Amino acid sequence: MSAPHVVIVGGGFGGLTAAKAFRHAGDDVRVTLIDRTNHHLFQPLLYQVASAGLSPADIASPIRSILARQDNAQVLLGTVTAVDLAKKVVRIEGGEDVPYDYVIVAAGAHTSYFGHDDWEAHAPGLKTLADAIEVRRRVLVAFERAERSHDEDERKRLLTFVVIGGGPTGVELAGAFAELRRFVLTRDFRAIHPADARVVLLEAGPRILPAFHEPLSQSAASQLEELGVIVRTGARVTAIDDAGVSITSEGREERIEATTVVWGAGVSVSPLAATLGVPLDKQGRVLVGDDLSVPGHPEAFVVGDMARFDQDGEPLPGVSQSAMQGATFAVKCIRASIEGIARPRGRFHYFDKGIMATIGRSRAVAQPFGLDMSGFLAWLAWLCIHLWYLIGFRNRLIVMFEWFWSYATYKRGARLITSGGGALAESQPTRRD
Amino acid sequence: MSAPHVVIVGGGFGGLTAAKAFRHAGDDVRVTLIDRTNHHLFQPLLYQVASAGLSPADIASPIRSILARQDNAQVLLGTVTAVDLAKKVVRIEGGEDVPYDYVIVAAGAHTSYFGHDDWEAHAPGLKTLADAIEVRRRVLVAFERAERSHDEDERKRLLTFVVIGGGPTGVELAGAFAELRRFVLTRDFRAIHPADARVVLLEAGPRILPAFHEPLSQSAASQLEELGVIVRTGARVTAIDDAGVSITSEGREERIEATTVVWGAGVSVSPLAATLGVPLDKQGRVLVGDDLSVPGHPEAFVVGDMARFDQDGEPLPGVSQSAMQGATFAVKCIRASIEGIARPRGRFHYFDKGIMATIGRSRAVAQPFGLDMSGFLAWLAWLCIHLWYLIGFRNRLIVMFEWFWSYATYKRGARLITSGGGALAESQPTRRD
Repeated sequence: MSAPHVVIVGGGFGGLTAAKAFRHAGDDVRVTLIDRTNHHLFQPLLYQVASAGLSPADIASPIRSILARQDNAQVLLGTVTAVDLAKKVVRIEGGEDVPYDYVIVAAGAHTSYFGHDDWEAHAPGLKTLADAIEVRRRVLVAFERAERSHDEDERKRLLTFVVIGGGPTGVELAGAFAELRRFVLTRDFRAIHPADARVVLLEAGPRILPAFHEPLSQSAASQLEELGVIVRTGARVTAIDDAGVSITSEGREERIEATTVVWGAGVSVSPLAATLGVPLDKQGRVLVGDDLSVPGHPEAFVVGDMARFDQDGEPLPGVSQSAMQGATFAVKCIRASIEGIARPRGRFHYFDKGIMATIGRSRAVAQPFGLDMSGFLAWLAWLCIHLWYLIGFRNRLIVMFEWFWSYATYKRGARLITSGGGALAESQPTRRD
Repeated sequence: MSAPHVVIVGGGFGGLTAAKAFRHAGDDVRVTLIDRTNHHLFQPLLYQVASAGLSPADIASPIRSILARQDNAQVLLGTVTAVDLAKKVVRIEGGEDVPYDYVIVAAGAHTSYFGHDDWEAHAPGLKTLADAIEVRRRVLVAFERAERSHDEDERKRLLTFVVIGGGPTGVELAGAFAELRRFVLTRDFRAIHPADARVVLLEAGPRILPAFHEPLSQSAASQLEELGVIVRTGARVTAIDDAGVSITSEGREERIEATTVVWGAGVSVSPLAATLGVPLDKQGRVLVGDDLSVPGHPEAFVVGDMARFDQDGEPLPGVSQSAMQGATFAVKCIRASIEGIARPRGRFHYFDKGIMATIGRSRAVAQPFGLDMSGFLAWLAWLCIHLWYLIGFRNRLIVMFEWFWSYATYKRGARLITSGGGALAESQPTRRD
């Protein structure tokens, strides 16, 4: 009889943690991890790729490499279209069904425009490497086109960068843009002055970083303003087109002319959740039981952004920590079942290690274990923690070097316009000559 | 009166060398460098990006950064569509004409399929970063699809990699593929054995590396065969489609089933040459005078791959050295003219420092100053020279680290499938979920 087969859907923080948690299980189990991409992405640093500080390969590792020495694990590249709980199979686009004995679904979330899908073309999100490369291209091309432009209005529009959403992604990206503009590009242009560029951060709610304590929100806002970012709270986006963003603020309509707009305002759960055919919450998350399993299916677990699990009356936050801790818990349950241990699974408990956001060079806010930190110390803490969690020794070394380099020289290494092949993609088709 | 304006077309080895050669000219001259991309590309290492050894940013530097501290130089991102020698203007797509007092045209060459443009879709070339990223994607996806396939013939086709052209690019790429297959991917797959993959190098002529002395060609062929590469000389390609390559060899027709085919067989000169309206040779190169200027236009120079210049009865080779030396000579002529020095320009003399090609880890052939070298010593020489010429201190450090890392661990850092956003692009459209 062959060993029980555990299928893991998704190679993000949740899925990868689950796969690795089986590393000492030996031949007692066969693990198959399926992901749409060939790499695990360290999403917290995506904004650094988008702002040309790091190369894509610095924050992504081939999943295959990470699991290469774990003989009980196989990796498949493929898009999972459905999980059939009744037949106990995972369905792959263009491939055969994969049967399982246990399944851990950790397909995460993707950028959501809350019904305004037409905004996507004008305001890319920041969830994948392709997103980050596209944002980087748009920002660098905007500077290039401004250097060539002789029209004052066009130049102003090209040099206005709008970030929508005051969560950690938006705050970190706005801070990085402000630094790119102020320090990095200062000497590179002749006709334009990069310091004239404007960075605008729009947040619909009353304060940025709403998940943080209020004093830290205020600290983050003033740290951003020191960098020259225009922070607008209570600004609700009503339209986005190729020339800018329309907002309503304090009951008045307003227009911000801008060529580069980035959407950091929201994500929604993978549509895979709906294929399970079990109750979801309003956000589309699977209502899991105490042990993170799907009600009525003790062999099927959902962890990370896709799971709705309340603790102390609040849903768990969509952060890497909750996905990783959930994955570890699910694997413990599965291993106990495989070993025939009859004791009850108990209830998953999320341990909140804290949250943090960086605001450019030497600035950050952090809330470790409920404590408030801001400024340089918070930034140092952020740096150490992100280096620690970055997968793979090699990536850690490279990223450390890149950071040290840009800190010491104010330069950015990865200022490449690669996608599309041509230069100014808006005006020029891809050519090979 | 404003300083004379020198326009340089192209930011490759020739154009960049020319721009930098004006760095001590101060306000006596205004230099404008125009390129289609925002980066100078170190083309000799493109094959390392294509074989996932290096990241794109490692071998490319923003031209703007390189020239940031040279106050007399401006950089424009744009595609030059024509050089009008009569009106003394350079025409930019979608922009205004740029007038010049002197022009240096160094737009290089691009991949040529010798009239078989339909082959391009099945066999990408290797001249741009986009090319290299595409080749890398195809190779990695082929392994992934083979891992999922249950059809023996399909699997064999997916694991056959054909490189067309036995010049340095083809030799280096075939060697890199062989190593990727033998060492790097060995532990990563479960269903396939990467060592089963075949790498075939096709050359139409009687020997590979025809620009080298014959013993070195033989040495290169046996070094490749030690790595498991199937070297086929006298093999003329007659057709390429999505399932493989048809060749004629020794009068017989033959078919090689392969999913991944790379074209390294030929380049042709930028079509910009034809817009000058002056005599060209059969390959489309501009027949330049002794001083590399266009006959009748002492203010217009053509250097690098675009120029036809004979020395010792042979046209100069299309290598970086000839472009760089030509650029330096052209700048000397221009500076003498600007300073009003009347002495004759004399004749350009190309100093051949030698040629070399690397064949995977620790193997190479080199011909420095006419001497023959092969094996480990040639490889060390290759390593030092390429690091030396790589633009920018930062890139040198990163590349050195990557090389040391892959040498020590047999791992490759940059195994990312990024283009297209999705995973198996052939079978799956780009999706965001």
